[in-house]
Amino acid sequence: MADESQKWVLMVTAQTPTNIAVIKYWGKRDETLILPVNDSISVTLDPEHLCTTTTVAVSPSFDKDRMWLNGKEISLSGGRFQSCLREIRCRAGDVEDEKKGIKIAKKDWEKLHVHIASYNNFPTAAGLASSAAGLACLVFSLAKLMNVKEDHGKLSAIARQGSGSACRSLYGGFVKWIMGKDEKGSDSIAVQLADEKHWDDLVIVIAVVSSRQKETSSTTGMRETVETSMLLQHRAKEVVPKRILQMEEAIRNRDFASFAHLTCADSNQFHAVCLDTCPPIFYMNDTSHRIISIVEKWNRSEGTPQVAYTFDAGPNAVMIARNRKVAGVLLQKLLFYFPPQPDTDLNSYVIGDKSILKDAGLEGMKDVEALPPPPEIKDNIPAQKYKGDVSYFICTRPGKGPVLLSDESQALLNPESGLPK
Amino acid sequence: MADESQKWVLMVTAQTPTNIAVIKYWGKRDETLILPVNDSISVTLDPEHLCTTTTVAVSPSFDKDRMWLNGKEISLSGGRFQSCLREIRCRAGDVEDEKKGIKIAKKDWEKLHVHIASYNNFPTAAGLASSAAGLACLVFSLAKLMNVKEDHGKLSAIARQGSGSACRSLYGGFVKWIMGKDEKGSDSIAVQLADEKHWDDLVIVIAVVSSRQKETSSTTGMRETVETSMLLQHRAKEVVPKRILQMEEAIRNRDFASFAHLTCADSNQFHAVCLDTCPPIFYMNDTSHRIISIVEKWNRSEGTPQVAYTFDAGPNAVMIARNRKVAGVLLQKLLFYFPPQPDTDLNSYVIGDKSILKDAGLEGMKDVEALPPPPEIKDNIPAQKYKGDVSYFICTRPGKGPVLLSDESQALLNPESGLPK
Repeated sequence: MADESQKWVLMVTAQTPTNIAVIKYWGKRDETLILPVNDSISVTLDPEHLCTTTTVAVSPSFDKDRMWLNGKEISLSGGRFQSCLREIRCRAGDVEDEKKGIKIAKKDWEKLHVHIASYNNFPTAAGLASSAAGLACLVFSLAKLMNVKEDHGKLSAIARQGSGSACRSLYGGFVKWIMGKDEKGSDSIAVQLADEKHWDDLVIVIAVVSSRQKETSSTTGMRETVETSMLLQHRAKEVVPKRILQMEEAIRNRDFASFAHLTCADSNQFHAVCLDTCPPIFYMNDTSHRIISIVEKWNRSEGTPQVAYTFDAGPNAVMIARNRKVAGVLLQKLLFYFPPQPDTDLNSYVIGDKSILKDAGLEGMKDVEALPPPPEIKDNIPAQKYKGDVSYFICTRPGKGPVLLSDESQALLNPESGLPK
Repeated sequence: MADESQKWVLMVTAQTPTNIAVIKYWGKRDETLILPVNDSISVTLDPEHLCTTTTVAVSPSFDKDRMWLNGKEISLSGGRFQSCLREIRCRAGDVEDEKKGIKIAKKDWEKLHVHIASYNNFPTAAGLASSAAGLACLVFSLAKLMNVKEDHGKLSAIARQGSGSACRSLYGGFVKWIMGKDEKGSDSIAVQLADEKHWDDLVIVIAVVSSRQKETSSTTGMRETVETSMLLQHRAKEVVPKRILQMEEAIRNRDFASFAHLTCADSNQFHAVCLDTCPPIFYMNDTSHRIISIVEKWNRSEGTPQVAYTFDAGPNAVMIARNRKVAGVLLQKLLFYFPPQPDTDLNSYVIGDKSILKDAGLEGMKDVEALPPPPEIKDNIPAQKYKGDVSYFICTRPGKGPVLLSDESQALLNPESGLPK
């Protein structure tokens, strides 16, 4: 009974950024609702360099919900996807597309199925918060498709149930995830502290670190920390609340010294409670440690912090430089210690905002090879180099929140079939 | 005026063990007196494999205090040596050697100088608590030479002022360093919980891990932790006191499961507070992490702990196996993952008590090469090997406390000249 009215496909495409926490989320007080044991604060990364694009489509011809990630179909049966889908569906509103002659009443949504296609413009498995951007984008785009009238705060509470840190990806700039008090999690939402223009000197350099170890997933890791660490509760109750206030003030005043001090200390403390877990969890490796030492030594030699570092549940270093000039010097130091493997060109070894590379006088591998040892090495020992220990670098900056892409050529689903292009 | 009576040399030689903490000492409440922020518990290691031998000599012909370590003269001007020397000197008693016709009155000691020669039967720089054994041996041998009437507890308080953990090397077996309450440190002493015969099933395997990093000295490290870690005080006041009681009970009952659980958790928590220090301190490296993973995976697969691990201020792993048989299996696993460099023979790669090697069927490199992957690796991925990441292994056991060596052939100083042999 393929009647004509069954043929329409309605689609929405959106783009959502990743974020990096500067005061860390680690530990849930409710596993199902994903309610954290403390507030956290993050910086949203520029979607130009790191983002998820998601197209969601609805059609009466779809016979079940389906999803494709980076072109490959994946199962939607996981509890996290189901939570988000259910929460959005039950808030769906009337939708009318006059041009296409489509009318969906509020009550129809529960009978309709969706297709979802998602694409990360960065390696999914590299430990770069792809699930945060992904779940945020899923919630945001579904909400637009289904004409959900909730504000970003309410949407963040839905995204949170997909992946905790996803809630922070619903805003640009500097974002706080308030842990909340409600048992149902209604007040565990993200709020924007300042937009991306508030502090636009900052430059972010990410070192994607090569790793041979299989890592503990953050879901498993934080559960084990909550169950076994003797230090986590003290961190969550005594340390983080003070740091949250100090971090809000540092961001408000664009006080880089305080911002850097808090960011580094909180990253290290998060990894400390991982180590205090039984069995212990190691996310940083020797390369991560070396990057910290390089930054710490430089910061001390300058007398005031130039660069902050933070590490999530993996060995990658996210470094935040106080400005473009400092970011250029940072890149020089990093490329001195971690040159690429032979036959790698600089253009594929440093990606993202390449203008920083250029400003730092690094146009090709010849410039990298000519880099002198950083002056803060006072020892007479020749500096050791660690070729191949970093896979590549990404240069980026604080960025904006989710946006709708109205240009249909950017959609990931075919507007006729509703299948991946 | 070289009169005949000036020519005598009086000597004492002693041997003192190293120790490994199973509840860690990290952080001083008084830097000068070396008073810790918490109690600690250690296992004394068999001096047959790891010990310091020290000869102390006195003669009216010596014109200043001098010391030689492993044959090389070193300065005695450091505050730590001076504290120990001063504390022992002021407790010196009358000494009479009838055979040699020597008489030293209590009051003469302050005018007499000493020569000290010390020798470690293991690499000094390898991070194996050489300063603990060394300072304990210095205090013990000087006390014997000067006829100091104090008991081992009082001597431990003096050794403590040389190097905190040295106080625990004044006893064999299982030793507790009580933090004490007195401002002057009079009650911050070591006591023996049980002698080495109490639990003689235990076998200790030490992996001396190759390291490219220069490490933070423990003196500097613990000062920075006290000044900057937000977690240390919680550890010292809330966590350690309970663990001390549990560890005493585990040792009393020879309860290996509890002993292992507490030992591993406390080692990890010590390294966690190091990480929570600003700037962070990393003592463990990727090899240390791999050893932990190997032991944790095995312990879990057996359902009950077979081996405990603990790491001091460096990457070396100290593993305590529940008995000889388990130690043999441990060595098989370790040698599978960490085979020696080519051209290294097994005899120099595994030192100490080699009988464990033999019992495990490991007579030569051929047996090592034939080792199958540990059965607890269930993945289909072939196990990775880390050749060269361990420098060598030492097999030992809990051991006895300091002893006097009466055989003059074992003295490190010439009985006529008082200079190194």
